[in-house]
Amino acid sequence: MENKNRNTAAIGVFDSGVGGLTVTREIMRQLPNENVVYFGDTARVPYGSKSKNNIIRFSRQIIRFLKTKNVKAIVIACNTASALALETVKEEFDIPIIGVIVPGARAAVRETKNGQIGVLGTEATIKSETYTKEIRKLMPEAEVIGKPCPLFVPLVEEGFAKHKITEEVIDIYLSDMRKSEIDTLILGCTHYPLLRSRIMAYFGESVHIVNPAYETAMDLKQILEEQKIANTSGEPAAYDFYVSDAAEKFKKFANSILPYDVDKTQAIDIEDY
Amino acid sequence: MENKNRNTAAIGVFDSGVGGLTVTREIMRQLPNENVVYFGDTARVPYGSKSKNNIIRFSRQIIRFLKTKNVKAIVIACNTASALALETVKEEFDIPIIGVIVPGARAAVRETKNGQIGVLGTEATIKSETYTKEIRKLMPEAEVIGKPCPLFVPLVEEGFAKHKITEEVIDIYLSDMRKSEIDTLILGCTHYPLLRSRIMAYFGESVHIVNPAYETAMDLKQILEEQKIANTSGEPAAYDFYVSDAAEKFKKFANSILPYDVDKTQAIDIEDY
Repeated sequence: MENKNRNTAAIGVFDSGVGGLTVTREIMRQLPNENVVYFGDTARVPYGSKSKNNIIRFSRQIIRFLKTKNVKAIVIACNTASALALETVKEEFDIPIIGVIVPGARAAVRETKNGQIGVLGTEATIKSETYTKEIRKLMPEAEVIGKPCPLFVPLVEEGFAKHKITEEVIDIYLSDMRKSEIDTLILGCTHYPLLRSRIMAYFGESVHIVNPAYETAMDLKQILEEQKIANTSGEPAAYDFYVSDAAEKFKKFANSILPYDVDKTQAIDIEDY
Repeated sequence: MENKNRNTAAIGVFDSGVGGLTVTREIMRQLPNENVVYFGDTARVPYGSKSKNNIIRFSRQIIRFLKTKNVKAIVIACNTASALALETVKEEFDIPIIGVIVPGARAAVRETKNGQIGVLGTEATIKSETYTKEIRKLMPEAEVIGKPCPLFVPLVEEGFAKHKITEEVIDIYLSDMRKSEIDTLILGCTHYPLLRSRIMAYFGESVHIVNPAYETAMDLKQILEEQKIANTSGEPAAYDFYVSDAAEKFKKFANSILPYDVDKTQAIDIEDY
């Protein structure tokens, strides 16, 4: 009985901006009974070019905000924050917090046949080598090639995902990696699944593309079941969206990628938390 | 005598990131006796997609920080902050504060022969229509065509200014404007002078390109003279650089565009101000 309120409490999900909606989409699909409170840090996006200290500070503020919404678990739906802040904030807060990197690394190890794995991400994610470390924990002999793709986030955020220019930027960043022996490629930034079909077409069928969002939702499901805090109320799930800036722009973007009509997005002052 | 300390005090210059260095460069050239304290808000860059409320808040914090450095005047070397925050902060602080838009508008009005003026800027700058209003104050019959170019800032910040891809993005954004009758074009974002030669080549000789940075330095000079606070000490000028994040990356960029060797850049926590 003690867990009843916790069971119906929401999952907190956060990202630097709209990218984490690709993770939210997977949670909606795979855990349709769960309520979600999403926070997009649109006032401070992008995270990928910023320092570890600031990413930890931003993550703490957001977790404090999400806790005011009484969430039962938190998903850091941002690779940069997962790479730089997860380890620290996990120790500081008393609810389950998961990131996207461990699930992504596990999926890549499961899929690869030759142990050669590519990782695309922001500058900060690649520099942290967190994917490499997590992959090697599971497969010590793996070879991991990381490549920062800093223009991918602005291209997606500015609505250029389907534009020809994006194809050229893909070629600039990834021509070397295409010549390598990798058979598995991790989309190590939550914006990148929005470029998935283009990246798949660029590498061809010999390379398996891993989207950590799917794996993360599976991990979350398992944690909720293990801790007996899954929502079994049978009520329709509620989704709430908060941002630190420019709510209208966010709403438009959210509606273009979620299987759900986002009719209200609230802007809050994240520096107050 | 009362003004002696004020005379040798520095000019405070700020921008969302590295763009304002193009204004700093003009101040160094035209006011070689003036000390400068520069602040780049690299933790919160870019400003162009963010809301007026946040831009005002960011600007207030930065002005409070610059005042701790005892500056005698402030240059908002960012078009977005000039467009959205200058009017408000001018009323709130007791030192001269100038932006880049009024000087840019004045130069455009001086150069145009047919009264058709183009303005390139961030989404926030163009949406504010501040350039249009300032131009029409001086030339009520002017026709002003604004165009937001949101990918220009990340292209410059990621070091793609001289890349072929930038030429294609210029064509995507500006092909309509090239077909128009404009004879004068304002580079209404401090990053854009770094794309100047490409934009000039794209429009050809019939279009005069206005860089508000140059005009802003001239305005500053006039204000310092009028208020009798120009630095006439004859001491070599000192330049100090502060950022809110990732000082090393900033330093590298600064050294690529300033006629001065930036050997030290300090990161501060701007949210403390």
